[in-house]
Amino acid sequence: MKKNEGQKVSEHFLYPLFFPRNIVVVGASPNPNMGVSLYLNTYKNYGYGIERKPEIYPVNPKYEGKKIFGLWKCYKDLKSIPEPIDYVISCINAKYVSDLLRECIEVDARFLIIYTSGFSEVGKRGMSYTNEIKEILEESNYESTRVVGPNCFGAINSQIDLNFNQFAEIHPGSFSLFSQSGGFANRTVEISKKRGLGLNFGISVGNMIDLDMNDFLDFFSLDLKTNVIGLYLETVKNKSVGRKFYKKLKSISEIKPIVVLKGGKTKIGARSAVSHTGAIAGQARIYEAVFKNNAISVNSSIEFYDIAYLLTLLFPDKLLKSRKTCLIVPGGGNTVEMSDILSNISLEFIELSEKTQRKLSNLLYDVNTGFENPIDVGAYGILPEMLLNTTKIIIKEEQEIDNIIIVIQLTRILGLALGYDKFAGTFARSLGRISRKTKKNLFLIPMLDQYNPKTIAENKKLKSILNKYRIPNFPTIDRLAKSLEYYLNFYKL
Amino acid sequence: MKKNEGQKVSEHFLYPLFFPRNIVVVGASPNPNMGVSLYLNTYKNYGYGIERKPEIYPVNPKYEGKKIFGLWKCYKDLKSIPEPIDYVISCINAKYVSDLLRECIEVDARFLIIYTSGFSEVGKRGMSYTNEIKEILEESNYESTRVVGPNCFGAINSQIDLNFNQFAEIHPGSFSLFSQSGGFANRTVEISKKRGLGLNFGISVGNMIDLDMNDFLDFFSLDLKTNVIGLYLETVKNKSVGRKFYKKLKSISEIKPIVVLKGGKTKIGARSAVSHTGAIAGQARIYEAVFKNNAISVNSSIEFYDIAYLLTLLFPDKLLKSRKTCLIVPGGGNTVEMSDILSNISLEFIELSEKTQRKLSNLLYDVNTGFENPIDVGAYGILPEMLLNTTKIIIKEEQEIDNIIIVIQLTRILGLALGYDKFAGTFARSLGRISRKTKKNLFLIPMLDQYNPKTIAENKKLKSILNKYRIPNFPTIDRLAKSLEYYLNFYKL
Repeated sequence: MKKNEGQKVSEHFLYPLFFPRNIVVVGASPNPNMGVSLYLNTYKNYGYGIERKPEIYPVNPKYEGKKIFGLWKCYKDLKSIPEPIDYVISCINAKYVSDLLRECIEVDARFLIIYTSGFSEVGKRGMSYTNEIKEILEESNYESTRVVGPNCFGAINSQIDLNFNQFAEIHPGSFSLFSQSGGFANRTVEISKKRGLGLNFGISVGNMIDLDMNDFLDFFSLDLKTNVIGLYLETVKNKSVGRKFYKKLKSISEIKPIVVLKGGKTKIGARSAVSHTGAIAGQARIYEAVFKNNAISVNSSIEFYDIAYLLTLLFPDKLLKSRKTCLIVPGGGNTVEMSDILSNISLEFIELSEKTQRKLSNLLYDVNTGFENPIDVGAYGILPEMLLNTTKIIIKEEQEIDNIIIVIQLTRILGLALGYDKFAGTFARSLGRISRKTKKNLFLIPMLDQYNPKTIAENKKLKSILNKYRIPNFPTIDRLAKSLEYYLNFYKL
Repeated sequence: MKKNEGQKVSEHFLYPLFFPRNIVVVGASPNPNMGVSLYLNTYKNYGYGIERKPEIYPVNPKYEGKKIFGLWKCYKDLKSIPEPIDYVISCINAKYVSDLLRECIEVDARFLIIYTSGFSEVGKRGMSYTNEIKEILEESNYESTRVVGPNCFGAINSQIDLNFNQFAEIHPGSFSLFSQSGGFANRTVEISKKRGLGLNFGISVGNMIDLDMNDFLDFFSLDLKTNVIGLYLETVKNKSVGRKFYKKLKSISEIKPIVVLKGGKTKIGARSAVSHTGAIAGQARIYEAVFKNNAISVNSSIEFYDIAYLLTLLFPDKLLKSRKTCLIVPGGGNTVEMSDILSNISLEFIELSEKTQRKLSNLLYDVNTGFENPIDVGAYGILPEMLLNTTKIIIKEEQEIDNIIIVIQLTRILGLALGYDKFAGTFARSLGRISRKTKKNLFLIPMLDQYNPKTIAENKKLKSILNKYRIPNFPTIDRLAKSLEYYLNFYKL
């Protein structure tokens, strides 16, 4: 694996976009139900900028001098703002945006995020607005204000709690996202907490009138806190951008893994992409050729988040060593089914040594159990200490095996009156300690009843502790298998 | 579609297995933690046999004359039981089972379910027990007691609340299950409630020393309450059973759909199947040839339950008419991704007529929305009435379209302070009413936060009402797509 050298991320021209000293919201309104208020509400409700708090400046001549949400004085225009501007958000009608851009350039604002939609994605009139903005940018020689959007939400940075999703806090971490879709970026914030996918930076760029994926790939590749990069991409502007993109993927994927979800691969998907971000999505085959060996290209958002989650837990110092795996499962039917699923992605299940099998059969009485590998722990699966001891035996006895997948029946363990009320915490921590002492990779599948509030709560606790110990856990074996398949193929294991 | 003729299910020799007049549990114990007690606990706790209550007779010479669980007098042996016996469950050590079978034959008990494990699945000693049982059966010319198992749980019948899963009640319905694995049958009971997969009969058969899938396929095909048949199969005993099986699949699949999950298709899966149900699983290719055109053969239990659920809602009078579909989604990124996923299974998205698009743009202002098909309702997706009205416009205007897939953002709808506290009930019922008046098939995907107790509870309500209206709903678009793919291919649409 290569390391990045040279330029520091703090010297990159995009740095002030993610660490702005101030944020100007143009079109601000005291009405909390206006679209624009999603920014102000979010900036108000979350601990935004705990360490390094950007100033918030609402702008709207209608409310000049008044306080918005009782917090921020409203300004008439950009010129009246008392400091150099980093970050302007446009929440005004599309027809006024080119005027705003001129104003930005006049005061030398660094970035204009055009939240406003109604540009090239809606036809002729929108296209003329788009062209006007392009002309202004060209006139300015791209030396002053740079544009993100239109039709997007802008920047996310968990380090300073910069977020535009009013429904969810960010779960900080090492994943950085480039997304053409604002909705997708919003979902990523929501998922980040639920899935344990820690987010570092995020950017939603919409129609990409100016800044595109190449700029952000650059930035993410320099950033030392970013271990894994994700792209949700609908379109590539033109061939020259495409060629650059290919080169960047190629060089960055040698440093850190990139996961791509390409929207609009099918005819109908592409038709939707046109009305969404206003550009015609290219041919699927070309993209596949571009991604091959340079990125992990997935087919759905579930797959996208799953593999990104897996990579953030494993990269860079817990990478898998081989396909050699031991599976520990309660119940014959489960064992057979899961063995089939995992064999289909070419995991290797070496038969355990006689010594190991003997040790296992001393631990687990041998009726309705199986010890060859997969290990069917049968009804002992409801006894957490048996699962932990089984795991320990494999770690101790089986040098060749690199991966251990443990399946527990969470619902059943909690459903039985055997005193496992604090099961999740105790079990997860014990497994965490085991994991720290071994070079093998552990994985966990907690089979659970999704509608039982008790098991849901315990599972949440279990996941959160396992994630801290960097033990990947997946709701179902199918989803673990799919992620491992992408992983193993990408790393050519 | 053919109809069954001739024999009544109540005349079939298996009828007393599913509608027993009495159940004898041999090896009964007053200790609630013994394996045997799972039967007695279940029979005690559920409304077992509400209409036609079978007598329960515990048998164990140790406790003769005592009451077990304060409910049932314990008997010494089968001979002392005061009525003709239908159903005997063996919970005794494998070495005594052949004696029990002899006793069964002596008193002419109809069925012996061998819950006991430790037969052919555990090697030589177990194999000799197996052979002994086979010899006794052959001597009796299979004219008296018939055997289910060993290494299984036996019969499930939701009509009389006959169940062996102490953790879950059965959700009654039209799906009947044949399972080699007892664990799989147990999970099916749990899933039946959670997933809305209504269960009629279920049988878990283990090693199939006597009765096998062909017997139960016969029975299920005759049963008028069974609309969909599911098989979890690890192995086929021999070629003659296999040939019969092929013929049965062929003829029954013309009457009602059959879903198969074949466990042990891979080498490692097959190795697990040996220690599980004691037989060597056959080659994957042979099975695929057997299932082709005669069953829907799936690759995981999630797929199994999903397609079974879909079929029980649609079969026989709501079958899909074509691949012509309209998708209604909030948000551009969602629309593009879901379009891709659904296009990949060859759903057809005809572009909507100009008239329809005009009507839609009158309803939903045209910024950040798309009306060609898929329909991106954008931010209007948080307004349930907009989703319902969009659906109504499609139903009214678009004769050619047969399927409408509606995606809602449940978490977001409930998260906003717009007064949708009773959203789930109101929305589901409105959609149900719309569905009743149209010949089109409706589907719903409720995007939700799996860890938010409020949305979980609302989703449960939503699902339960939609299921009553027979509107299939899936937690994610991927899972709907997979099920539809199996469906469309099987029905050659």
